[in-house]
Amino acid sequence: MVMFFMLMLFSFSNVIAQNKDQVVRIAKLQIDPAQLENYKAALKEHAEVAVRVEPGVITLYAVAEKNNPAHITVFEIYANAEAYQAHLQTAHFKKYKSTTNDMVKSLELIDVEPIALESKTKQ
Amino acid sequence: MVMFFMLMLFSFSNVIAQNKDQVVRIAKLQIDPAQLENYKAALKEHAEVAVRVEPGVITLYAVAEKNNPAHITVFEIYANAEAYQAHLQTAHFKKYKSTTNDMVKSLELIDVEPIALESKTKQ
Repeated sequence: MVMFFMLMLFSFSNVIAQNKDQVVRIAKLQIDPAQLENYKAALKEHAEVAVRVEPGVITLYAVAEKNNPAHITVFEIYANAEAYQAHLQTAHFKKYKSTTNDMVKSLELIDVEPIALESKTKQ
Repeated sequence: MVMFFMLMLFSFSNVIAQNKDQVVRIAKLQIDPAQLENYKAALKEHAEVAVRVEPGVITLYAVAEKNNPAHITVFEIYANAEAYQAHLQTAHFKKYKSTTNDMVKSLELIDVEPIALESKTKQ
């Protein structure tokens, strides 16, 4: 019984430790309107693959502004800095970058500090 | 067997319909720096309560920019427009609004269209 509670406590601290290591970021992009559909297809494919195959890619929420569809925001959560560095070396990320290189007019990366990351289970 | 597949198909269409109804939005706020810690506490409490007790509040990801901590972004997902309207009538939302009313210097609400909403299970 004591072992059980110690194990519970250990797992719990582990979860907290992992969350503190998380890298959270917002990417803001302006896309060439003439290439927007191709860009969105490439981004969608990249997000699906990255979250599915990389244990350290926790969340990639990519959205387009309704009033300015070429303005894209991506909300990104990585398990830790190492997971993010590993992500940059994957074949799917490199493919995404080379495919979209001439579609992206500007890219701003904003490092953020979580206040609350509340969500029901997987969308 | 046919019934089983029809049921599968029905559930599947249901999931898709639900996702298409989702309301996704980004809120950008500038907070009075002198009241930032109080604001963040109120926002954190509000996000936790809303996602826990409201079936239609799917995601509230609130973050502060590291280089400009008084600049807050909230990434919001509601199940549908009705869920969002119901949210505005809850006691916890009204409490959050009245508590933070004089802390918020500006609020911009940006309606967005999802491109990809990829995430591992609950953070």
